[in-house]
Order: sequence, then structure tokens, then C-alpha cells
Amino acid sequence: MPSASTTADASAKLVAVMAPGAGPDDAAEVVRAVTADGGRALASRGGGRTLVGLTGTARTGPERLRALPGVADVVAVTAPYQLVSRQTAPERTVVRVAGVPIGGDHLTLIAGPCAVETPDQALAAARMAKAAGAALLRGGAYKPRTSPYAFQGLGEEGLRVLADVRADTGLPVVTEVVDPRDVELVASYADMLQVGTRNMQNFALLQAVGAARRPVLLKRGMNATIEEWLLAAEYIAERGNLDIVLCERGIRTFEPATRNTLDISAVPVAQRLSHLPVIVDPSHSGGRRDLVLPLSRAAVAVGADGLIVDVHPSPDAALCDGAQALTGADLAELSRTLETLPALLGRSLTPAPQAPAAVAGLAPLPG
Amino acid sequence: MPSASTTADASAKLVAVMAPGAGPDDAAEVVRAVTADGGRALASRGGGRTLVGLTGTARTGPERLRALPGVADVVAVTAPYQLVSRQTAPERTVVRVAGVPIGGDHLTLIAGPCAVETPDQALAAARMAKAAGAALLRGGAYKPRTSPYAFQGLGEEGLRVLADVRADTGLPVVTEVVDPRDVELVASYADMLQVGTRNMQNFALLQAVGAARRPVLLKRGMNATIEEWLLAAEYIAERGNLDIVLCERGIRTFEPATRNTLDISAVPVAQRLSHLPVIVDPSHSGGRRDLVLPLSRAAVAVGADGLIVDVHPSPDAALCDGAQALTGADLAELSRTLETLPALLGRSLTPAPQAPAAVAGLAPLPG
Amino acid sequence: MPSASTTADASAKLVAVMAPGAGPDDAAEVVRAVTADGGRALASRGGGRTLVGLTGTARTGPERLRALPGVADVVAVTAPYQLVSRQTAPERTVVRVAGVPIGGDHLTLIAGPCAVETPDQALAAARMAKAAGAALLRGGAYKPRTSPYAFQGLGEEGLRVLADVRADTGLPVVTEVVDPRDVELVASYADMLQVGTRNMQNFALLQAVGAARRPVLLKRGMNATIEEWLLAAEYIAERGNLDIVLCERGIRTFEPATRNTLDISAVPVAQRLSHLPVIVDPSHSGGRRDLVLPLSRAAVAVGADGLIVDVHPSPDAALCDGAQALTGADLAELSRTLETLPALLGRSLTPAPQAPAAVAGLAPLPG
Amino acid sequence: MPSASTTADASAKLVAVMAPGAGPDDAAEVVRAVTADGGRALASRGGGRTLVGLTGTARTGPERLRALPGVADVVAVTAPYQLVSRQTAPERTVVRVAGVPIGGDHLTLIAGPCAVETPDQALAAARMAKAAGAALLRGGAYKPRTSPYAFQGLGEEGLRVLADVRADTGLPVVTEVVDPRDVELVASYADMLQVGTRNMQNFALLQAVGAARRPVLLKRGMNATIEEWLLAAEYIAERGNLDIVLCERGIRTFEPATRNTLDISAVPVAQRLSHLPVIVDPSHSGGRRDLVLPLSRAAVAVGADGLIVDVHPSPDAALCDGAQALTGADLAELSRTLETLPALLGRSLTPAPQAPAAVAGLAPLPG
Repeated sequence: MPSASTTADASAKLVAVMAPGAGPDDAAEVVRAVTADGGRALASRGGGRTLVGLTGTARTGPERLRALPGVADVVAVTAPYQLVSRQTAPERTVVRVAGVPIGGDHLTLIAGPCAVETPDQALAAARMAKAAGAALLRGGAYKPRTSPYAFQGLGEEGLRVLADVRADTGLPVVTEVVDPRDVELVASYADMLQVGTRNMQNFALLQAVGAARRPVLLKRGMNATIEEWLLAAEYIAERGNLDIVLCERGIRTFEPATRNTLDISAVPVAQRLSHLPVIVDPSHSGGRRDLVLPLSRAAVAVGADGLIVDVHPSPDAALCDGAQALTGADLAELSRTLETLPALLGRSLTPAPQAPAAVAGLAPLPG
Repeated sequence: MPSASTTADASAKLVAVMAPGAGPDDAAEVVRAVTADGGRALASRGGGRTLVGLTGTARTGPERLRALPGVADVVAVTAPYQLVSRQTAPERTVVRVAGVPIGGDHLTLIAGPCAVETPDQALAAARMAKAAGAALLRGGAYKPRTSPYAFQGLGEEGLRVLADVRADTGLPVVTEVVDPRDVELVASYADMLQVGTRNMQNFALLQAVGAARRPVLLKRGMNATIEEWLLAAEYIAERGNLDIVLCERGIRTFEPATRNTLDISAVPVAQRLSHLPVIVDPSHSGGRRDLVLPLSRAAVAVGADGLIVDVHPSPDAALCDGAQALTGADLAELSRTLETLPALLGRSLTPAPQAPAAVAGLAPLPG
Repeated sequence: MPSASTTADASAKLVAVMAPGAGPDDAAEVVRAVTADGGRALASRGGGRTLVGLTGTARTGPERLRALPGVADVVAVTAPYQLVSRQTAPERTVVRVAGVPIGGDHLTLIAGPCAVETPDQALAAARMAKAAGAALLRGGAYKPRTSPYAFQGLGEEGLRVLADVRADTGLPVVTEVVDPRDVELVASYADMLQVGTRNMQNFALLQAVGAARRPVLLKRGMNATIEEWLLAAEYIAERGNLDIVLCERGIRTFEPATRNTLDISAVPVAQRLSHLPVIVDPSHSGGRRDLVLPLSRAAVAVGADGLIVDVHPSPDAALCDGAQALTGADLAELSRTLETLPALLGRSLTPAPQAPAAVAGLAPLPG
Repeated sequence: MPSASTTADASAKLVAVMAPGAGPDDAAEVVRAVTADGGRALASRGGGRTLVGLTGTARTGPERLRALPGVADVVAVTAPYQLVSRQTAPERTVVRVAGVPIGGDHLTLIAGPCAVETPDQALAAARMAKAAGAALLRGGAYKPRTSPYAFQGLGEEGLRVLADVRADTGLPVVTEVVDPRDVELVASYADMLQVGTRNMQNFALLQAVGAARRPVLLKRGMNATIEEWLLAAEYIAERGNLDIVLCERGIRTFEPATRNTLDISAVPVAQRLSHLPVIVDPSHSGGRRDLVLPLSRAAVAVGADGLIVDVHPSPDAALCDGAQALTGADLAELSRTLETLPALLGRSLTPAPQAPAAVAGLAPLPG
């Protein structure tokens, strides 16, 4: 899959793949060498690897770059995206969220309430999630809503609730950020930042999370092509952050029976084009509780690296998307599926972290 | 799921569900009773059941109908489609194609070449299909093509080739019919008639196959809603033929990475709305060989009743859709998947018929 | 616009453009010359021109063809469609329907009821249409309906009503045909055959109307690309009939405020790609009476060659699509628009035929 | 069109329409009265009117509100959007941009380069725009681009260029803002803030421009329904800014011949649902220079309140979207169309401002 050829293709860009043992100084040296020659170089780290994207390297040349310390390979990328292209990495990336892996031969369940409503609701939902096999907790404190009159989330109060729930359950937290001005605040509470479907081409936000030291869950825009989705990921990577997980969540079509149409093919297509993990949101795709289980099974079978699922202790009282939240028996059925199906596809379900106290990153980040 | 209520809902239509042991005379008696009162009644048979769709029954009434011999129940249907609605039948229909079941707890593989090109090519493809676990042979003799200058199929010569291949391999034949004038001819060779995506709203053709004594494979129009798809099935059922299998084959969206977008959600949605079996065509959905295996796995996992897959002994030389045909190793991998995955979902792979000679229905039908 | 180059482009096909004065024998001679050399040639006539599409002409060559009597030019066509390509004809085609022109610098209004319901309703609608400026009468006798339980049209009885209305008003008749078996019957009553949106890729029907001696109104499929639409026209042309008018009628998108989305850009795009006239159906596009006038204005302004509009004497009682039919004041407003707007675009409104008795083609066609 | 009924509909919200002569104190009194009763009230000003949106007014009641000074009417709104609903205002809003009107019986042309590249290019484009009849100058300093490697605009340097060009030509400036952190800066240079298609549901940005004292041009999201578009406008209005102009710029469909599909029906639909002006962008819709003129004509004919068009002195050298920019003869043809077509629709072309020095708002806004 990775291009062996590094001969100068006019339209190709080069990526220096740093060796596993290479340090930040090695990458900095590549950047220095290229910029000294008038080129442009961007180092990006994540998933245990460092890549340096290069443009305008005509004078530097792959041979010279390859001779630099810590450079494992220099590959030519013909895709419009560079750092996230599969051409840079034959092995698929494993992103770790406070130690919990997504990608590789793992199957990771992320679950929780669509929106944090109260401490009790959030804790109950998190316990349901953990009991069902979730290794990460999802929950929204900032909710992008179509109407300004709909519930917009609890804001920082919601983030505090999530931190408390994490302390109680040990589940690292995935939560959405909707405004570049909030990225630092959200990152000070969350283990993974989510960029939602309506913000997939909010480039200011992408760049802000690209500069944050947290893994990012990037949902596909409901009208975005797969190429646009990967270019959005490239916006994040280009700012230095390669810890990106892609999430297919349904596209907008003419079919009214489901809220959106889960583009199940997008999972293998994106996995062939990019080294990043790809997970599926069966809850928002269909918008119907009765479809979450079959769509989850389909997602695992098609080869997704994980699922992100809405659960709620009392869906009928939910302030947001209750119609799609799993509860009780549905969730138990999903749990049973995840005990057997992944193994058939060569994957194992990622367990929840053992020690609640060991969760990292709770302290606010320095500015 | 079936409506217990049969009280007169103004917008509801009634369906008389005949008892398993009831004969054609019993259904005829229902038709007679309703038409005598000025109503309209249509008997439809298939999947081992007989339903009589009723309109304008205000004067007859469900109580009187329920008292007629052979009537098991009279149910009110609120869906826009009547005979194919799940409201008429709590159990899902099993359609039998020359004895091969589709539906229920079966998982049926239909495979073969997109188009019949030569006797050798068709036989080789059929043997590949059978070796991989197919119980039915697909193959096109009449090909609806976007351009008038593309290969249009071999016509009746192709039908004769299919009959020969069936005699050799024992696999019953599924083949497309595109013109109402050809229905009798095609039905004289084929075990199952396929209506293609471009003809899903060719109502003259739907009515013609509704009058034929062959099961029908009804592909979803690439721009049809699920409701329109079920109404197309109702056109067939309304002419008396309830032996219908629905086939999801991808819808047209903005995404260019795949030829069409497989609407995987359509499988459980259609199964909840209709008692008819629903299968998936992973070959035409994606139009890419590398997606057939993951999409097949997704289809089985989501609960599809079967798959219809293109295979070809030498895809690069195919006259039609070679880019998506499975061959060699891909097909072997699909075969392995079908040995293990269905059981996890409570299904068993339908075996190919044992005795080639025992295939029924080869003789041309009387006019 | 027409390709001057006739040098052998491997992927290009040749079209012999016959001179205006050339006769059928001249075209036949071209066909003979090419087929004698092992090529394939198809003569197509309409809009006052004769084109001969050629494939496999490597041995014949454009120079030799150009020397044949009656051949005005031999042009290479690089589009996937050949006879309908603008590359064959710098001037845009004028199709005549019983003498009424569509195309060139004409603006032609076709109006009438969606479906023929009764003689009185059809006559009243036709008189409304004529008073508003219509030169042709539309009206459906065979209605393709999504549900088998919806009104399907009066069939041949409807055709007789249309013939009577034509005798009374002098307006030539445009009516839909939905089954290849009905083409001869419908052509024996109608002046122009309509192929509806659901049948745009009903290739058997396209070929049947291609063999009929009547102009054809080809509606765009609601999910068809412009290229597929032109290929559908090519199916008709390839059977000899070049008297084709294209009709944009809205495509299916995610927007629910209108029944379909009028693709207004399709008019200039199709006119650049093809020499055929392109008209617009503002009634079925939007499915809303309040949009018919603004969409009609947009269609004229964008350069459409005509409009086809639903009118009904009492829309609330209509058996089909009453919600979009114009009546009374709306229709008067449309009429006023058509008195002034076309001139601004360099077009003149086509008047209705003068003499009712002079309408041609009433006698059934010989088999 | 405006709902006469103000009786309590459970799902309806109330809007207090302030009289033309009412002052800010009057609106403040309404807000005070409602909040004192536990309700919520939001005053929004623009287009010469003040509306106060009310929720939770059960205890206050329309009668009491109607008696407050300066309240012209209290209307119930059943749409999901409140302040932008046509139900609040029978007359359509006229938004003034540095004195230049958009809406009412005006037809306003906005033109300029897609992106500001150099002072010379921007000035040349502005002069072309003015000569062609533009009353406002468009030009991008912040460009949201699909790829992080594409030209992203000149940023503040581009804003300074626009201010210089405004000083030279007298044309007020419309320019895009993409980040809520930049709204104050951009508003200190620009006369109108544009929110682009990819940011239509960037709610943080909508709220930021809602708090700015500048009119807003809100482009429709390429995948947004009309209802979502109006809800996005409501986000702006709900923060106090009713000076909003809606802009249809094409939606994403399956058709590849155009970059997007201009949804021409959206203009009259949005005008019926909202009192805000609606303009059309024929350049970005089609993405093709040869379609700008026909689509502009269609937009004017359908009833749009204006056009926003890309022009460039040398399109082939443009850094952004050169393929769609008008120049020379195309632009002259558009200019001629705008001299004659609007009058036919009862509109007059808005002239450019006379006195360059009189342009308001150049000084940076106080923080």
C-alpha cells in the first residue's frame, strides 16, 4: 500500500517518516534542513509515530533527507492529503486515549449520554456504558443544535460533571468542542476532543484542536465526501496532532426513514486511504433506537475500529436525541454481540481501564 | 408487530389472511363476498401463504369476513402498501426458488456473472459460485445499459446458456427481465425473475412479473425511498404474486468514492415494514472488488436474508462490470466468512440443491 | 462548437451530417458503404436534419464518406452520445409537433391537465391552456403512479377524449406512454409521445418510441445525471427518431420544501452538450402552485425552449397532482409573463395553430 | 401572510412587533415586563424594525403586551424560527449596507473577486464590478478552503486592501469572517459580514456576528434544508441583529456537471417563509463561467433581491475559483441584462453610492 517510489513526481509531496526511536530533535533537524532550502516542513506526532510533511523540497531531495538521523523513510504521497494518507504508513495507527487504544486489532466501545443533563443522569449512563463494555465515556457539555431555542448543553458545568464521573468510573472522557475559544478549557477536562459533523469544515476549530495536546475524534460532515473528511483530518495533523480518530455518522440523502444514511462503505474506503482508525456512530446515523444494534453489528463486521453509542438511563426524558439512546435490554444485547463478533473479525474488545485513580490529564493544561 | 386491531380505521385497508390449510376456493369465496358487496378484493399467493387485499369493505365488515371458511384472520393495514406489509404477517416470509429457500433463518448466497458472455464463461462462473457456497445462480441475458452502444446481453441465447449451466451444476437460475413483452419467454427459462434498479418503477413490467408464476427479485431503485420500493413490491403482489424478494443495491448520493452508497440501514427498516425477505447486492453497491467482502460481512451482520454477488473467471476481460466481480482468493475469503458469520446471527447458509436433474420448471410455460 | 477535426481519434465516433437537400437514398447509401466495410451505421431523422451515426469506420474513413452524394460533413464526436451531441450541429434543432415548433428562437407553452378525468374537465382545461397562450395540449391517459391503488388514468378512453379536445381546440396533443406494447396505440392518437421521469431508463420503451413516427418529449429521470439523460435520448435517436425534446422536471435531493429540486442549470448545460430543445416542467418540479409562476419565469430567463404546465378547471377536485395545477388568476399571470419576458431573451411565444381542422396525424398509423 | 391570530397556541411563540416610531426604551420595557413574569424576551433590530421574541409568556399574555407603549402588534409564530419568520412582518425587510439597500423592490448587485490577492487585482476587479452596475464590493480576505495547502487568503492585510479599494471606488465592502475571534477585527473594516456555506451551522460564529453591529450575509449551507437555513438566521437574530440577507449558493446533489446545484426554488420558498431578503450566488453554484449569465437571469426572474458575482481582471491567474469569475464580455452582457430584466419584475437596479467619502463605519469599532 505505501508507495515505494520516491522519485520526483511533480504533483507528489514528500513525507519523512521518522523511526520509532527518533526524538523530537531528529524531527526538528528535518524541518530545519528543508526550511533552510526554502521548503516548508511540518512535524506531526500521534499514534506512536512522527511524520514530517514536506513541500517545496525540490532542492533538498529525498536522498539527502533519508540520510538525516532518525529518518526511517521518505515517501512520496500522491493523495491531496499528506500526513494522514495511508501511503505514509503501511501499519494502521493506534491512537491512545488516556491509555485506551483505538485502532489496530482493537475494537473500542465509546458510550454515554448524548448530552450531560445532571450529575445523576451522567453517572447512571456511564455505569450502564461501562457495564456494557465501554472503555471510554462520551457525553456532551456543548451541544451544537439546529435551533437556538433547543437545549445547548451545560457548558463548563457539564465538563465538571464529566470529570466527576470519570473519577468515579475510571472511564476517560470524550466530549465535543464547538468554538476555538473553548479548546483549552475543554482540553483541561477531557481526554479526547470531539469535532462534530456540523464543524467538520470549521477550519479555525480544526486548527485549534490540531494545536491541543489531546486526541481528536473527527466526525464526518453529513454532506462531506470521504476526501473532504480526510482533508479536514489533514488540517488537524498539519498543526502537529496526528492522534486523530475518524468517525462515520451518516450522510444526508433523500431517504426519510432514517435521520441520515449510514455510509457503511466509508469505513473500508477511509481505511484504505488513511492510516487513521475509523469508528462508527450507529446512534446518530439512523436516529432510531431499533437500528442501533443491527447497525453496530454491521459496523463491526465491515471492519470498524470502534463504536460510539448513545445510552441514557431514561431515554424518554432525555433533553437531546432520546429517540436513539440505548437502555436496558437493547444495551445488554449490544454487549452480548461485542463478546462474540469482534473475534470473528480478528479483533478483541478493548477493556475499560482498571484503576480509576490512574486516569491522566485531569489537571488543567498550562496555557 | 401485526396490528391486533381490526376495528374500522377510515384510512386503513383490510387484508384477509388465509389459514395455512385453506385452498384457492376459500380465497375465491372471500373475493366473491367482497365484490358482491361492491368492494374490491385481490388474492395474492407466495411464501406459503395466501392474502386477500380488500378495499371498499365498509358493507362487508371484518366480522363477516372472519367467519368465512379458511380465513385465519382479518387485519387492518395502515401502511400505504397492503399485501407486503408486515402488519399482515408476524412471521417473515420464506420464498422458495425451485426449492431453495430465501428468508426465515436462512442465509442464501446468489452468485454468478453479471452478464452471460459465452457458455464457457457462464459455466466457469457458476462452478466458482457453487464452490463458494452459492445456492442460486445469477446471470444476465438482457442487460439494461446506460449507453445504447454498450453490450446489451445475449438475449434468448443467453437464456439457453443459463439453462445448460443449470443442468450441469444444479443451480436454479435468477435472471433479469427488462421488457413486459419478454416476461413469458424469460420465465420459461428462469427460476426467478429479476427486476433491476432502473425498472423499479416500470409499472408495466412490475404488473407483468406479478402475473408470472415465478418468484421475483426486486432491486431497489437507486433513487427510491424504502416506501416507494415497498409500493413497487405491492404492484407485483397486487397481481397475485407474493413470492417477492427485496434487494438493496445502493442508492445515489453525492459520494464519488463508491459507485453507489449501500444503504445498510434499509435492510432492518424494510424487514420491520414488510414480511418479505431482504437481500443485499454488495457488488453493484460499491462497484469495487475490494469492497465486496467487507460489505458482504456488513450485510450478513445487519440481518440480511442473503447476498447476490458478481463472480467472473477473468474479471479483466468481462464485458460488464468486471471491476466489481470476485474471483479466486476474494471469493474464497467470502466463502470462509459465510461458514462462520451466519451462525453468530442465528442463521444457516442455504446449501446448493443436491440433484441437478431434479430442477423443476425447465419446460416453457403454457401461454 | 462542432468539431472541425475529423482526424481519427481512437475514442471518437463519426457522424455523417446529410445536406438539407439530401434524400433518404443518400443516407441509405452512407449506411450501405459503411456496412459493406464491416462498420455499423444508423440513420436518424428529425428537426429537419438527417444524421448517420457510424461506428467501426476505420476502413471507410471520413474522406471517402465526405465524397458520397448528399453528405454535407463528417464530424468526430467525443461525447459518449453521438447523434444528439451538439458536436454534430452548430444550430440548435427545431422540433415540429403537428407543425408547432419547439426550439430555435421559439418559446413554446405546453399546458393541460395532469390526467384526463372526464371529457368536460379535459375540454375546460384545454380552453384555459389555449387562452393562456399554449400551443400544445398536455394530458395523461396512462399515469405511472407510485401506488397501485392510485388513479392510473383512463387508458384508451382518455386518448379518445384527447382527440376530441384537439378537434375542438386545434391544439395538438402531447401524452405519456408507459409500456412499449402501447406505443403504436398511443401514437395513433397523439401528436407527441411523452416518456416520463420514472421511465427515462426504461430502455425497451425508449427503443419503441425511437421506432415510432412521432416526436418524443423525454423527461429527465429524477435521479439521472445530465449525461444519462442525453444517453437516454441517444437510445431514441439510435432507432431513427431525432425529433426529441428534453424536459427538465426536477431532481431528487434532501430538500423537503419542494417535491423535487428544479435543476435550472441543467437547461444551459444540456443546450451546450446537445442540439436538442430543452423545456422545463415547473409544475412537477416544485409540486406547489405558488411556485409555478416564479419557476416559469426562471425557466424562460435561463433560456429554456418552452414550458409544460399543469392546469385544471378545479384543482381541488383533481384526481392527480391538483396541488400544483394552475387555474384562474395564476394562469392569467403566467400568460402576462409570457407576453413580455420571452422578447427580452430574443424569443417569441409560439402561437396556437390556427385551423383546428388542419391537424394532421389523426388516423391510426399502419402497423 | 402574517398570522392574525394571537390566541394561545400551545406550540406557538409570541413576537412583539414594535411600532416604527418606538425607541429602544420601549423594547426594553417589553423585555422587562416579560422577564418579570418569568418569561424570556430577546429584542432584535434591523431593516428598520424592532422585534421582541418571547417565550414562556403564559402569564403575561398578548393583551397586556399589546397595551405597552410602542408595541404595534403581538403575533403568534408557528414556525420553528421566530424573529425571522414572515409571520412577524407582512412587508419584506430592506437591509441597508452603509446606505445601500437590499430587499423591497430593489435589485442589488454585489460583485468583486473571490479572494483579495493584490491591491492592483482588487482595485481592478472593483472597478469592473462598479462599471457593471455593482453597488457593493465582495472580496475575501479569510478563505475557508477544503485543503490546508490551498491559498487561505491574506487575512488582515486583505482587509486593509479592501478598505483602500472602498476609499477609491466608494463601494461598501462585503467580506467573509470564519472565526468568532476575528469578528470584531473584520467588522472594523467591513460594511457587511459574510458567513460562508461551510459555516452556516457554526453556531459560535453565528452568535458572534449576531452581536456585531454590521449587517450579515448568510450563505445557505450546501447541504442545509431551507428550514435549517432560517434557523441559522434565527441564531443571528436572537443575539439582536436582524440585518440579515440570505444567500442561496447551490446545494450538493448527485449531478457532476455543475459544482453544486443552484436551488432556484429556494428563493421564493424562503421569501414566503421569512421577511429577510434573499439573493443568489450564480458563480459558486455552478462553478462555471458560462453558467453565470443564464443563472443570473434565472435568479432575477425568480424574484431574487440581488446577486453576488465573482469578477476578476484575469481569471486564468486567479488564486481561487478563477474558473467561475466573469470578465470582459461576459460581465458586459450581465450588465446589459440588469438594465432591462429587473424592471419587468417590478424592481430597479440599486445604484452604487455617489460619494466615496461618505462611506460610513470605517473607523475601528470600540471593543
